[in-house]
Amino acid sequence: MASVDVGVALLGYGTVGASVCRLLAESGEEIERATGHRLRVVRALVRDLDKERTFPAEDGVLTTDFAAIRDDPAVDVVAEVMGGLRPTGDYVRELLRAGKPVVSANKQLVAREGADLFATASAAGVQLRFEASVCAAIPVVKVLRESLIATNVHRVLGIVNGTTNFILSEMERGAAYADALALAQERGYAEADPTDDVEGLDAAAKMSILATVAFGSRVTPNEVDTRGITGVTAAHVAAAAELGMVVRLVGIATLTGEEVDVRVQPAFVERSHPLAAVDGAFNAVMLQGDAIREITLEGPGAGGTETASAVVADLVSVVGTAGTGFLQNDACWRELGRLDGDAWRSSFYVHLDVADEPGVLAHAASRFAAHAVSVAQLVQRLEDGRASLNLVLHEAPLGDVRTALGEIATFPEVLDRPFLAPVIA
Amino acid sequence: MASVDVGVALLGYGTVGASVCRLLAESGEEIERATGHRLRVVRALVRDLDKERTFPAEDGVLTTDFAAIRDDPAVDVVAEVMGGLRPTGDYVRELLRAGKPVVSANKQLVAREGADLFATASAAGVQLRFEASVCAAIPVVKVLRESLIATNVHRVLGIVNGTTNFILSEMERGAAYADALALAQERGYAEADPTDDVEGLDAAAKMSILATVAFGSRVTPNEVDTRGITGVTAAHVAAAAELGMVVRLVGIATLTGEEVDVRVQPAFVERSHPLAAVDGAFNAVMLQGDAIREITLEGPGAGGTETASAVVADLVSVVGTAGTGFLQNDACWRELGRLDGDAWRSSFYVHLDVADEPGVLAHAASRFAAHAVSVAQLVQRLEDGRASLNLVLHEAPLGDVRTALGEIATFPEVLDRPFLAPVIA
Repeated sequence: MASVDVGVALLGYGTVGASVCRLLAESGEEIERATGHRLRVVRALVRDLDKERTFPAEDGVLTTDFAAIRDDPAVDVVAEVMGGLRPTGDYVRELLRAGKPVVSANKQLVAREGADLFATASAAGVQLRFEASVCAAIPVVKVLRESLIATNVHRVLGIVNGTTNFILSEMERGAAYADALALAQERGYAEADPTDDVEGLDAAAKMSILATVAFGSRVTPNEVDTRGITGVTAAHVAAAAELGMVVRLVGIATLTGEEVDVRVQPAFVERSHPLAAVDGAFNAVMLQGDAIREITLEGPGAGGTETASAVVADLVSVVGTAGTGFLQNDACWRELGRLDGDAWRSSFYVHLDVADEPGVLAHAASRFAAHAVSVAQLVQRLEDGRASLNLVLHEAPLGDVRTALGEIATFPEVLDRPFLAPVIA
Repeated sequence: MASVDVGVALLGYGTVGASVCRLLAESGEEIERATGHRLRVVRALVRDLDKERTFPAEDGVLTTDFAAIRDDPAVDVVAEVMGGLRPTGDYVRELLRAGKPVVSANKQLVAREGADLFATASAAGVQLRFEASVCAAIPVVKVLRESLIATNVHRVLGIVNGTTNFILSEMERGAAYADALALAQERGYAEADPTDDVEGLDAAAKMSILATVAFGSRVTPNEVDTRGITGVTAAHVAAAAELGMVVRLVGIATLTGEEVDVRVQPAFVERSHPLAAVDGAFNAVMLQGDAIREITLEGPGAGGTETASAVVADLVSVVGTAGTGFLQNDACWRELGRLDGDAWRSSFYVHLDVADEPGVLAHAASRFAAHAVSVAQLVQRLEDGRASLNLVLHEAPLGDVRTALGEIATFPEVLDRPFLAPVIA
């Protein structure tokens, strides 16, 4: 078999870029066997030509001039591993318009500008792949786009942030939130400023990408109803354990009829559910569809080599489908409406701190009943004249549950703001 | 975009074939959006033209003449959903040689004749895909071949038989083996003659396919060291629970240096391991590689619609890569040696029934120590003058463990044949 060289350019040559270069070199034979082509990095855009690199590029590869990449006919495909929105987004658009397929590892770019980028790629007749932009090496984008094409995927559940999953796993083992966060920082899972992770913003960006791909309609991060884990206490984690559940930060994307709902929040996950088994800094995504029931993919959701592995897989897929028109017009092809958040249905967990007085429970239950919300399970704990009520509610619209809880919160016996979380069974 | 029809032929039109036909019809638009092509079933090989079908084929599609499919220029790709080895294997070879890509859902055919079929496809310059031949809709073959191309996958762990997983899950809940088997038969998970499932033969066929793909070297079912679950007792399941583990029928394919080992046997899986969470009739496969650490895929491993979904995904992938040379020469490209089973390393669980006499434990421990096998954990239970010893051994070569156990089995205090199972941590 005659092998033809395929020229690869990198935008960016940091940790991921260097790993892509290394993997392409080390796996050159495997890739050639699969594709019939030898992939070579011929250009890499950097800011500083003289910076030392973990895996140095070959002579003449590094450049500070974007146009040298865009206009180089030897560049057949480009991997964007530089991050950021500007100038990255413009570079990607220019490359696509110049007829060069692009592979991106850029979560924020794909989450915020994906729809426009897909349209640009489609108009130019080239592919834009983005496996590495979400959950690193876990091939959830490929599985959604290629394997589940004949199954109407209507729900995506994801533990897509390793930092919060690590913190919640540590809390399950008895750590306080602050100590678990400090340990996550010590181990390099959490940034010095952990806001993006613990407030759920990172997860929201990833869920917006997954929802866009799963439902074929644009979902941006600011459309994701997002709540982080800073309000999760040891008491919630203990209550979950008592109910046979674990607390996890879960992204839930739902297609109901022609309407989409995407949310990220702490959820109570039943121990027997595949997502409950996701421990530490791992990620997992469950895809539910008509023909397949459900498929769960689990693995490390971050890491330089893991991300690079996904970038290389995308490069290989671009080469393997070149010229066929495959996956050029499918990523974001319709505009679906948004489900009114109040109409979103789930089973829920409710935590109430109340004064230990007779009748409180009956009073609360009557409020739920008045809004046709029924209680499935109740665990009550007493401590120092206070009672902690832990309720599991049957599936009901979020709006009805919130209305009932709003009424309950006004009771004089209720000592603290109620805590509400969906239950995943 | 101008859509071009792609003619699909089916070999067989049973449950899976009819589901493929239905999914192609129902998902026609999704497929056209992804590929630019409309896939149409133009021929289907059947034995009886007049049999009633759940999803009837269009007029003129059914034929009893294989040559009418092989020689029809309107047939662009063929889905083999008829099962069996003869004449199926010959049909597939003839089709490949005639330049028609083939998608197969045939576990036995791919497991036993895969290497030859891959070579035939490669020589003819067409694709042979076989996602549906293992674990139904779980896209493990695609992930191995396309997503993990730059990661040296060196270990595959699989719960690949839903029947035995259901039985073991029921035993975990307290059922006796015979009752759990009867329930599996009642629910349609197990055949009237459950031999293939409970003796591990079905799992061995699937593991041979997964090992072949993962390591690129031919592994046939009879090369898989296979032990079923008929020897698993309530006592083993209880001992596992006490040790924080569950018993599962696990396939383990290992690449050590240039040598392959594939085995299927009951294993003790730690509760925190992703495979331990696989409950009931579900399947899961964990892929371990250098660049990705590990990725686990879980879902229903059987079912007509699930299998058909995988067949359709393969058809779409064939169309999406047509003419690129992708995946034509990679499936089975080297001949690796077999690891001597005695050299295979693992942590192990050992169950010994012994007379409750002083010194038995020390005696047994000294035999392990004599073969450099060290004991990590021990739980002893007494009952009616008998002691049940449950040991967890640190990682050691299987041969050394077996030798020590062989010596221990000759002790007069040992009342029954020792039970040995690998531990998956």
